[in-house]
Amino acid sequence: MTAIRENLAQSIIEAGQFLYGRGWSPATSSNYSARLTSAEVLLTVSGKHKGQLVADDLLAVDMNGISLENGKKPSAETMLHTQLYRWKPEIGAVLHTHSVNATVLSRICRSDSLVFADYELQKAFSGIATHESEVLVPIFENDQDIDRLASRVQPWLDAHPDCVGYLIRGHGLYTWGQRMSDALRQIEAFEFLFECELTMRMLQRT
Amino acid sequence: MTAIRENLAQSIIEAGQFLYGRGWSPATSSNYSARLTSAEVLLTVSGKHKGQLVADDLLAVDMNGISLENGKKPSAETMLHTQLYRWKPEIGAVLHTHSVNATVLSRICRSDSLVFADYELQKAFSGIATHESEVLVPIFENDQDIDRLASRVQPWLDAHPDCVGYLIRGHGLYTWGQRMSDALRQIEAFEFLFECELTMRMLQRT
Amino acid sequence: MTAIRENLAQSIIEAGQFLYGRGWSPATSSNYSARLTSAEVLLTVSGKHKGQLVADDLLAVDMNGISLENGKKPSAETMLHTQLYRWKPEIGAVLHTHSVNATVLSRICRSDSLVFADYELQKAFSGIATHESEVLVPIFENDQDIDRLASRVQPWLDAHPDCVGYLIRGHGLYTWGQRMSDALRQIEAFEFLFECELTMRMLQRT
Amino acid sequence: MTAIRENLAQSIIEAGQFLYGRGWSPATSSNYSARLTSAEVLLTVSGKHKGQLVADDLLAVDMNGISLENGKKPSAETMLHTQLYRWKPEIGAVLHTHSVNATVLSRICRSDSLVFADYELQKAFSGIATHESEVLVPIFENDQDIDRLASRVQPWLDAHPDCVGYLIRGHGLYTWGQRMSDALRQIEAFEFLFECELTMRMLQRT
Repeated sequence: MTAIRENLAQSIIEAGQFLYGRGWSPATSSNYSARLTSAEVLLTVSGKHKGQLVADDLLAVDMNGISLENGKKPSAETMLHTQLYRWKPEIGAVLHTHSVNATVLSRICRSDSLVFADYELQKAFSGIATHESEVLVPIFENDQDIDRLASRVQPWLDAHPDCVGYLIRGHGLYTWGQRMSDALRQIEAFEFLFECELTMRMLQRT
Repeated sequence: MTAIRENLAQSIIEAGQFLYGRGWSPATSSNYSARLTSAEVLLTVSGKHKGQLVADDLLAVDMNGISLENGKKPSAETMLHTQLYRWKPEIGAVLHTHSVNATVLSRICRSDSLVFADYELQKAFSGIATHESEVLVPIFENDQDIDRLASRVQPWLDAHPDCVGYLIRGHGLYTWGQRMSDALRQIEAFEFLFECELTMRMLQRT
Repeated sequence: MTAIRENLAQSIIEAGQFLYGRGWSPATSSNYSARLTSAEVLLTVSGKHKGQLVADDLLAVDMNGISLENGKKPSAETMLHTQLYRWKPEIGAVLHTHSVNATVLSRICRSDSLVFADYELQKAFSGIATHESEVLVPIFENDQDIDRLASRVQPWLDAHPDCVGYLIRGHGLYTWGQRMSDALRQIEAFEFLFECELTMRMLQRT
Repeated sequence: MTAIRENLAQSIIEAGQFLYGRGWSPATSSNYSARLTSAEVLLTVSGKHKGQLVADDLLAVDMNGISLENGKKPSAETMLHTQLYRWKPEIGAVLHTHSVNATVLSRICRSDSLVFADYELQKAFSGIATHESEVLVPIFENDQDIDRLASRVQPWLDAHPDCVGYLIRGHGLYTWGQRMSDALRQIEAFEFLFECELTMRMLQRT
């Protein structure tokens, strides 16, 4: 194993310990990845306990999501990861999580996007410098056909080069960053905003 | 003690540490078991702190719930465990927990079952491959007469061979799996869905 | 220091670590005690961080709440502890905590008592064997004059020999047990029931 | 590094570990400080993970917020810290946090202040001896122009010498104390009261 792969593997394993510990990757859900090279991605195999990942629970795939390792089958959702690495060369890490709040908010919200405004914490997203901006988060319908789902995500990405993450309804969140620490910071910011928004809705729902 | 019993005892002790830590087995509530042989089950004795179990807090019973160990009295709810091991030979572990969300949801819901639909996390249950399926969870009335309660559970199990768990009203959850890790995954999935469902009901209750 | 005092001091220190960790004794609130002899009680001094207690943060008082140690001033609420040890000789530990849920429930509830019914977890209280019983918890108005508050608590205790705990409005919970582990089990059971009750009220409040 | 600076740096690092662990400083938000001398303040640089601070993530500034260390840029919000140290010479530590509850409560509340009354925990604030007092907490509108924000805070501080903290709408809490432990106690008390108040509003909102 190269030193680069070893470091990235360790960053994915630690991300899993953190995200599982926070309750955002329960019951073997979620998948995580990091860019190995311009043409290869290191990704979690499906069905593993995300708080107990080991290096062998990761595999390398090419940018079409084809496994580069004998005997290891990439997660069904691999294409949603590689799609993002192809979209922007500066993306180095992609995290997909399944929190209660992301699940509920994506189901409660009847429109096809959420807007976050007037939160100081919006500044935690890459490229955002003031709470007076708006963060637009699309919600895609859930689909077990990942190619079809990816084909609905692509036009949004193309039209919104400043997109910082998206939701799949009843399913979870995709977000990313240059390094793993950036993707983790965005996860924390999203989960903070999801919890704020749900609490606000509970209080305002008269 | 045989190596098999020692391993199963350890898996029950660690399950207790996890489930107590999550707040799902408070105040000495809950009971857990694992299959020792086709005719014997290893089970927690009643009244112990579930985060602090030791090997001596477990006893072997036969499939009728009769203690196989002098001086140890099985939990009153033993029959609800052995009933499940008799129902399906592939079940290797049964977990019964008492979370706030399971308690509240089973009381708030006036009908005799819950249905979970359109949640990606339904796929965490054995045998479920898509969020487009429905997970049906029966709710039985609580009863201190465990034989009577078991006799109400049995017809449901017989009629629903794909059942993944059930609730007792105001009391808690029973779920199971081939190995302890499978039963724990199902607990996490249930608790996730319970929390989603309660939050959805709070938001939709206009 | 006697071995008995040393053991009781350790049980109070560990209770504080647990109760603070759960968020039930925030911001130096709460006080805890254990019976040293038929005439003496070991008690926390006031104003300490309850997750970081040391042996020197405890003092012995007599059954009238008078300090038996030079230079240590007992908590203002000492009389609420000694009152309980005088009430029942079998009480060995008393815990007073300040959780959000106890505070809110005691304020939201307009009557002078709460009733818990149909919860399996009621069986965690000493002397209760079925969910079909009722657990009656009085709520006393808060008062900075502890003698006056104690004089309102006493008639209730005299009239309800099976009382398992009480609330002070906007303030917190008093509960107890034969050993520290019994008092802790009752705290967990109360906090479970408080959370259930608040969640039920949020869902039913239409 | 002087021993005083080393001790204060350690107290800030440990405060960050605690506050991040509680979820009150997510996604690199928040800033913390401690008084070095009558003319200098030790402060976190901006943009760091608050649970993983190291001594190099701190810098000394003068009372006008000017960096005293080459190559380190103080946080944009430095003036809100130095303003407090100039206001009262007895203040030794200032904490600014971004919890979900502070964010939501400051947005939900339409007036320009909150009042806490009838909570025993009000006694955790410096100078408050009874739940019969009232704790008044102003809410300032959020502003990326920190000089302008500080100029709106100053008249309030001058008019309210007993002020124990303030909120910035959609942004977070500022509180302080003689030592770091006092500021932390006030953070815990505020977060307790915020959670109580939000829960009360959810229950009363009919």
